[in-house]
Amino acid sequence: MLDLQSFETNLDRYAAEDLAGCLVLGSNGEAAVLEEAEKLVLVGAARRLTAGRTLLVGTGLESTQATIALTRKVADLGADAVLVLTPHYYKAQMTLDALRCHFAAVADAAPLPVLLYSVPAFTGLPFPAPLAAALAGHPRIAGMKESSGDIALLGRIVAQVPASFRVLCGSAPVIYPALCVGAVGGVLAAACCAPGPVAALYRAFASGDHERARRLQAALTPLSTAVTSAHGVAGLKLAMDVAGLKGGHVRAPLRPAPASLREELAGLLREAQAAV
Amino acid sequence: MLDLQSFETNLDRYAAEDLAGCLVLGSNGEAAVLEEAEKLVLVGAARRLTAGRTLLVGTGLESTQATIALTRKVADLGADAVLVLTPHYYKAQMTLDALRCHFAAVADAAPLPVLLYSVPAFTGLPFPAPLAAALAGHPRIAGMKESSGDIALLGRIVAQVPASFRVLCGSAPVIYPALCVGAVGGVLAAACCAPGPVAALYRAFASGDHERARRLQAALTPLSTAVTSAHGVAGLKLAMDVAGLKGGHVRAPLRPAPASLREELAGLLREAQAAV
Amino acid sequence: MLDLQSFETNLDRYAAEDLAGCLVLGSNGEAAVLEEAEKLVLVGAARRLTAGRTLLVGTGLESTQATIALTRKVADLGADAVLVLTPHYYKAQMTLDALRCHFAAVADAAPLPVLLYSVPAFTGLPFPAPLAAALAGHPRIAGMKESSGDIALLGRIVAQVPASFRVLCGSAPVIYPALCVGAVGGVLAAACCAPGPVAALYRAFASGDHERARRLQAALTPLSTAVTSAHGVAGLKLAMDVAGLKGGHVRAPLRPAPASLREELAGLLREAQAAV
Amino acid sequence: MLDLQSFETNLDRYAAEDLAGCLVLGSNGEAAVLEEAEKLVLVGAARRLTAGRTLLVGTGLESTQATIALTRKVADLGADAVLVLTPHYYKAQMTLDALRCHFAAVADAAPLPVLLYSVPAFTGLPFPAPLAAALAGHPRIAGMKESSGDIALLGRIVAQVPASFRVLCGSAPVIYPALCVGAVGGVLAAACCAPGPVAALYRAFASGDHERARRLQAALTPLSTAVTSAHGVAGLKLAMDVAGLKGGHVRAPLRPAPASLREELAGLLREAQAAV
Repeated sequence: MLDLQSFETNLDRYAAEDLAGCLVLGSNGEAAVLEEAEKLVLVGAARRLTAGRTLLVGTGLESTQATIALTRKVADLGADAVLVLTPHYYKAQMTLDALRCHFAAVADAAPLPVLLYSVPAFTGLPFPAPLAAALAGHPRIAGMKESSGDIALLGRIVAQVPASFRVLCGSAPVIYPALCVGAVGGVLAAACCAPGPVAALYRAFASGDHERARRLQAALTPLSTAVTSAHGVAGLKLAMDVAGLKGGHVRAPLRPAPASLREELAGLLREAQAAV
Repeated sequence: MLDLQSFETNLDRYAAEDLAGCLVLGSNGEAAVLEEAEKLVLVGAARRLTAGRTLLVGTGLESTQATIALTRKVADLGADAVLVLTPHYYKAQMTLDALRCHFAAVADAAPLPVLLYSVPAFTGLPFPAPLAAALAGHPRIAGMKESSGDIALLGRIVAQVPASFRVLCGSAPVIYPALCVGAVGGVLAAACCAPGPVAALYRAFASGDHERARRLQAALTPLSTAVTSAHGVAGLKLAMDVAGLKGGHVRAPLRPAPASLREELAGLLREAQAAV
Repeated sequence: MLDLQSFETNLDRYAAEDLAGCLVLGSNGEAAVLEEAEKLVLVGAARRLTAGRTLLVGTGLESTQATIALTRKVADLGADAVLVLTPHYYKAQMTLDALRCHFAAVADAAPLPVLLYSVPAFTGLPFPAPLAAALAGHPRIAGMKESSGDIALLGRIVAQVPASFRVLCGSAPVIYPALCVGAVGGVLAAACCAPGPVAALYRAFASGDHERARRLQAALTPLSTAVTSAHGVAGLKLAMDVAGLKGGHVRAPLRPAPASLREELAGLLREAQAAV
Repeated sequence: MLDLQSFETNLDRYAAEDLAGCLVLGSNGEAAVLEEAEKLVLVGAARRLTAGRTLLVGTGLESTQATIALTRKVADLGADAVLVLTPHYYKAQMTLDALRCHFAAVADAAPLPVLLYSVPAFTGLPFPAPLAAALAGHPRIAGMKESSGDIALLGRIVAQVPASFRVLCGSAPVIYPALCVGAVGGVLAAACCAPGPVAALYRAFASGDHERARRLQAALTPLSTAVTSAHGVAGLKLAMDVAGLKGGHVRAPLRPAPASLREELAGLLREAQAAV
């Protein structure tokens, strides 16, 4: 069951932070295990609570037509843009051409801006660098979230697309170097539990204070690694609990984080906050 | 849209073959891109047309509770057993323990026998060998479909489970060696387009005619590679068309096989048939 | 320092077993960390002690010309054939064509038969299936040792080469299924510590007793896994010590096996022997 | 055969550039296919021609004792420091502990500073992040060359070592972001054919001109990708020829670059130069 009250509490808290907006139904939002009806409830609630901010919604599914259908529904609910995951079940067939056709079909049918979303840690599928360039000219494809952590790939993508195609980094342990090579922002799980330090890093970079950005990166990396690759969604939710937000349960097959992790996360959160 | 008439034509044809049963909603049945309503229609139709044979149905989804719900629905429609895919989106968290809990929860709630299903080519997730042994004692877990093609792994699994846990091979290029090391059967995409040669291979092995089984394996391997790893679902469907069955379209993001493949598949089908 | 006395004791012991010959300077013979002078001493000693049996010698190095030079030296010492590893340091450049040229150049210059050697666990390089067919016509290329454990690959290779090209399996956990799909023998680390069970498995297969071959395979797999992938050369050497042969030390950077492994290996050796 | 005259011509040319020193016997110096005698000749020649600059020499071999022996010989020839590759043939056994012992043993015996060298593209072996920290306290281990291109890993290493442990980046497509997160310099194949742009990038970063550093990075990336991952050593040597240096032949099993690559490399070199 959804815990909508906690969801709204979190969104209220984020509204007080220096964030450009929110992503709902991302990988760490457990989109992979939510029913469609639940997804729509969450989007509706999020729209009410993010007035004046960007509401980005994950709508990527394995099927092109199902992705289009969900995209239209969240557009009706007032989403500002959708984040469309690379389909990945039929990996060997997800060629550059197949992916290009998928994203183009979704964008053709989408009544709102589309961002591509590549996250090989979950999909097992690398992002072909020329794909971004092949799609950057589509009037409704606004950019992408690149979550591989591969800065050389991110740099190659930035080099091949016009400035109108906005490359966002999805990997907090490399957000500062990603900004250095041309990412224009980030969509980061770490911001769920530590929005302050993440926003501070972005502001430091934007103001040209590289030394401060680097220091904030060093302070954020252990926390962000803990709440993603090391402990996953359950780690992130526990870190939110520790930070005074509402993390709550994970849905099976994900398993709860061990209680013993709480102290470690508290320490990492303190370190990240201390660097601000 | 579903092409139910073609689906039924295929099932009628398969009923004339020496097959133990049918799998509906497998990976090559495009389960990953079907809506739930479509899945239930297909299962209902399959049940009507497979009377007296085993009807195996794929019900694995990312969420444990969603897998349980679908499993119950297909049980109500008369399925004989379900094939439950390893959840895999949150790869790094799909530990032996998480997978064990997932499968056990599904089996606890399932009103029919459950088969585990591991297919790393699609999931990107290796199957931990001790997982089969950890689950083999569950009264409703009847066995597994192992589709990695790793014969050493299959042998290790067979060695660790009681004979009541039935290991089926899901990789046609190694079906004969899989039977040699203890698989009790196969669930093979190649059987969709070449049921005769596949059944002949099984009978040859069962009767102790290793020389004939090996010859049939050699004749089947190029075809089965073409309709799986090389050309995927679209290749398999085209091969079905060539073989006089009803392959039909693939659903996006899968792309149609090039027409130029038709001749190659015809040759491979002839070679497989000639070995019978 | 070489322990030649132990080396000779082992070869004497192997001479009493039903083995076709010996491989010296293989991966488990620590060829990667031996000096050339040491290699030549070992080959000379081995030749004296393997009269009447096949003496196979590993001579593959990264450089084509160095491989040729070493091949000639071991030919002068009386080797019967050489086993030539795929060069692998410059992985991305080791295309089918580069490997074909390398092996052809070695075979052109070799005064004795050449066997190709693919072992991805050490080289990190997959073996391109068409490479065997591309080289099978060379008058001095006699076959290959395929150590990936991938039975589908081994089957594809066998299907593409004439019978004169002899495919040997280098992975003991799949030696029985490898023989089933057309390997004509094996070159197996497990035979260093358990020559009896390995030879018994081969004889069972050769006499058509598949049931016995399968049982011997099941009994050999845990031991062979322990002395290769699990514990490596140090595990194999400890198993030789336990079996009454002379295993001895490993050379750094390899680390000695923990003494606690001795009991486990003793149990695995007993199980393998008990199946004979 | 070595082409010493060309080697010396190149070193003379590099002496006129703003480089801190030279690496001899690196991966792109074809160390993997050189004989020891050739290596020593090259080191001797390099020492004569790099007076006043740092001469770094690659001495890593699979065997610990062989690495030590070569390290001592190049120290006698006047090398300033050695670069020691991770041994990697026995991959599964190259645990953190085995690697730590190897590097410590080499450093214990080395009469000059030691730099660790990790290059997974060639070794197939990932670098365990805690290894640098475990060795950073050794009085003769001065730092490392990290060539994976993984900026998150490089950042984690920098965070775990004292400032006295110098982290150098070995991947030109990420040299600028590597400097941003704490690398203190680079050892880059691209500098063999384009020393000017590489040095300019470093100076731009050192002077705080991030905008210029980023522009130089973007201009260098296509060239550096072409002369490493895309075309390897042969591509690098051809680029040196095109740039007026002496690239020359590659040694088999490497294959010569196709002549058709010349024009592409000329274009990439011009782009890199134009950004200076």
